[in-house]
Amino acid sequence: MSNIKVELTKSPKPKPVDESKLTFGDVFTDHMLIVDYDEGQGWHDARIVPYGPLSLDPAAMCLHYGQEVFEGMKAYRADDGRVLLFRPQENFKRLNLSNDRLCIPPVDEEFMLECLEKFVSIDADWIPKAPDTSLYLRPFIIAVDPHLGVRAANHYLFMVIASPVGPYYPEGLDPVKIYVETKYVRAVKGGTGFTKTAGNYSSSLKAQYEAKEKNYTQVLWLDGVERKYIEEVGTMNVFFKIDGEIITPSLDGSILGGITRKSAIELMRGWGMKVTERRLSIDELAKAYDDGKLEEAFGTGTAAVISPIGHLNWGDTKIMNINNGEIGPVSQRLYDELTGIQWGKVEDKYGWTVTVK
Amino acid sequence: MSNIKVELTKSPKPKPVDESKLTFGDVFTDHMLIVDYDEGQGWHDARIVPYGPLSLDPAAMCLHYGQEVFEGMKAYRADDGRVLLFRPQENFKRLNLSNDRLCIPPVDEEFMLECLEKFVSIDADWIPKAPDTSLYLRPFIIAVDPHLGVRAANHYLFMVIASPVGPYYPEGLDPVKIYVETKYVRAVKGGTGFTKTAGNYSSSLKAQYEAKEKNYTQVLWLDGVERKYIEEVGTMNVFFKIDGEIITPSLDGSILGGITRKSAIELMRGWGMKVTERRLSIDELAKAYDDGKLEEAFGTGTAAVISPIGHLNWGDTKIMNINNGEIGPVSQRLYDELTGIQWGKVEDKYGWTVTVK
Ligand SMILES: Cc1ncc(COP(=O)(O)O)c(C=O)c1O
Ligand SMILES: Cc1ncc(COP(=O)(O)O)c(C=O)c1O
Repeated sequence: MSNIKVELTKSPKPKPVDESKLTFGDVFTDHMLIVDYDEGQGWHDARIVPYGPLSLDPAAMCLHYGQEVFEGMKAYRADDGRVLLFRPQENFKRLNLSNDRLCIPPVDEEFMLECLEKFVSIDADWIPKAPDTSLYLRPFIIAVDPHLGVRAANHYLFMVIASPVGPYYPEGLDPVKIYVETKYVRAVKGGTGFTKTAGNYSSSLKAQYEAKEKNYTQVLWLDGVERKYIEEVGTMNVFFKIDGEIITPSLDGSILGGITRKSAIELMRGWGMKVTERRLSIDELAKAYDDGKLEEAFGTGTAAVISPIGHLNWGDTKIMNINNGEIGPVSQRLYDELTGIQWGKVEDKYGWTVTVK
Repeated sequence: MSNIKVELTKSPKPKPVDESKLTFGDVFTDHMLIVDYDEGQGWHDARIVPYGPLSLDPAAMCLHYGQEVFEGMKAYRADDGRVLLFRPQENFKRLNLSNDRLCIPPVDEEFMLECLEKFVSIDADWIPKAPDTSLYLRPFIIAVDPHLGVRAANHYLFMVIASPVGPYYPEGLDPVKIYVETKYVRAVKGGTGFTKTAGNYSSSLKAQYEAKEKNYTQVLWLDGVERKYIEEVGTMNVFFKIDGEIITPSLDGSILGGITRKSAIELMRGWGMKVTERRLSIDELAKAYDDGKLEEAFGTGTAAVISPIGHLNWGDTKIMNINNGEIGPVSQRLYDELTGIQWGKVEDKYGWTVTVK
């Protein structure tokens, strides 16, 4: 760790007083991690410095051409005081997948994780202790050369910032109402849907807003080619229990490979459940509903962990009320098991957690 | 104009000495235009200030979720000293189209154009005079709230920066070699292809790089659904002359409505040529080539104006050499007419140019 410079803040900020009132992503800790990339030199000068504004040239390429990727993960405070990360290696692996697609130079996954752990240990007092709270960690990379003209940049910043957070959905584990999106498309094969790049999120806003106006929490995305295969729900992966079998869309290039998704699949298979990754059309889902076979539906993601879906609206005429709008047993069990492992309350049989020193 | 504050630089930068050596988008003028947006207050505090770095919170939403749109236009120096803009109203109209899709509040098109003209008049000495040079203007909007979590921002900056530029393609009007892209997709209906938003450009880099490695200047994009209809060429619109008729892909939602495209169509129709906007498949194009009917191909865009295509590679086996790799008569005539109007050398029958006071 000798090559990570540390400059501690001289004016620590007050920490949130009432941890039960924490929102998501509005408050930031005392420090941030920065690593520079310069063509020829590679990634260099890893440093932890006081949290503060970046000085960016107005022509910085990230502000024009969106060469930006990010990750999302959490640090959890266990009852015994340990600080836990959940499968962080997976985040850095995925970051490099995003990097490759976006023409950003790869990072050294092990070294970046080491930097991140060091950063978390320095701001460890910011990890809240109230139930369902954690420290959200946001690694991201931005292209910073001042240049107009479409090409990959030569200078980048890798950064990690952190925010103490409460639950992502104020509704908590309450089942949400979802609108099946038929006008807008999130991603298409050959595009960037399998990466965490900025443009995937800005392009999704409009659908999200139109759904909110109709009183839906989020949208269910369909594929961009045939406009019928289910892809994701909002910014989560999606699962359905149909006639006893768990089905989730296969990762075909337009879907983000969620770490919660992967973990949920492994857990459920470990419980002896049948889990199938395949294409699932909205017609097939509606048919299963009509036949009384659609037993559960839920989204998975780092922010909300598990988000049960209680109600689906397809084309304003087909309404599916799933499991009477209540949390299903699989959703509940996954939520308990995943959060149990994440907060160190349940035995970590799979070796998923990393304890920050 | 009374409500545009101006703070002139105290340390003007040296201007490029050899205008024949100007590159594209690397040098910036002495000033920049900024207008703030705050929820509740609207766009406010238009000001022209010395060019310099922006101070952005590392959680500024544009760095994570890509809520960013831009425009590209030029200021031209006429022989009689006048400073001309080319159809700038169209840029602000398109900016608002992009804004709408990206959930960014609309701008007052007339007022923003007024601000831009004021800015250009202040940095007018930066407009180069050498042939084929101009001052590239980059209006852009970025979301600046510090917040993690996918939603539209509440605070934005509208800015204009400017760069004295030489020709976009160092090759000049020389016909370029183009690779028909069959792996990557630029945009899909239901997405953001018709807007100028950051994410469209970052997602296109990889195809561009792979084409460059094979010694092609750019790619020809096919549609994301059937993967056969021609959409654009690099960051330009594309035209073909087949058996005497000009054909260009219709604006179906995944193609940017270029201002050069629009102007080229109007000019050619004014010359009595048959111009058709419709879907054109790569198979149909290859067939026309085989039948000896593919007479010309060219791209259109603000940066390069007209870029003749001399060579198309489809699937590594189908090579199309167009017009013997030479500039065709329509490409040449459009280039002469458009640049003639833009630099004020040719009568502006359509009333396209705006003289900056
Ligand atoms: C588009 C999208 N899908 C799915 C996910 C879930 O991924 P993970 O479980 O790794 O958080 C996320 C969030 O990270 C996402 O942004
Ligand atoms: C994707 C794309 N297509 C086409 C164009 C051409 O548009 P215009 O003629 O308005 O410059 C541009 C450049 O602005 C572009 O970025």
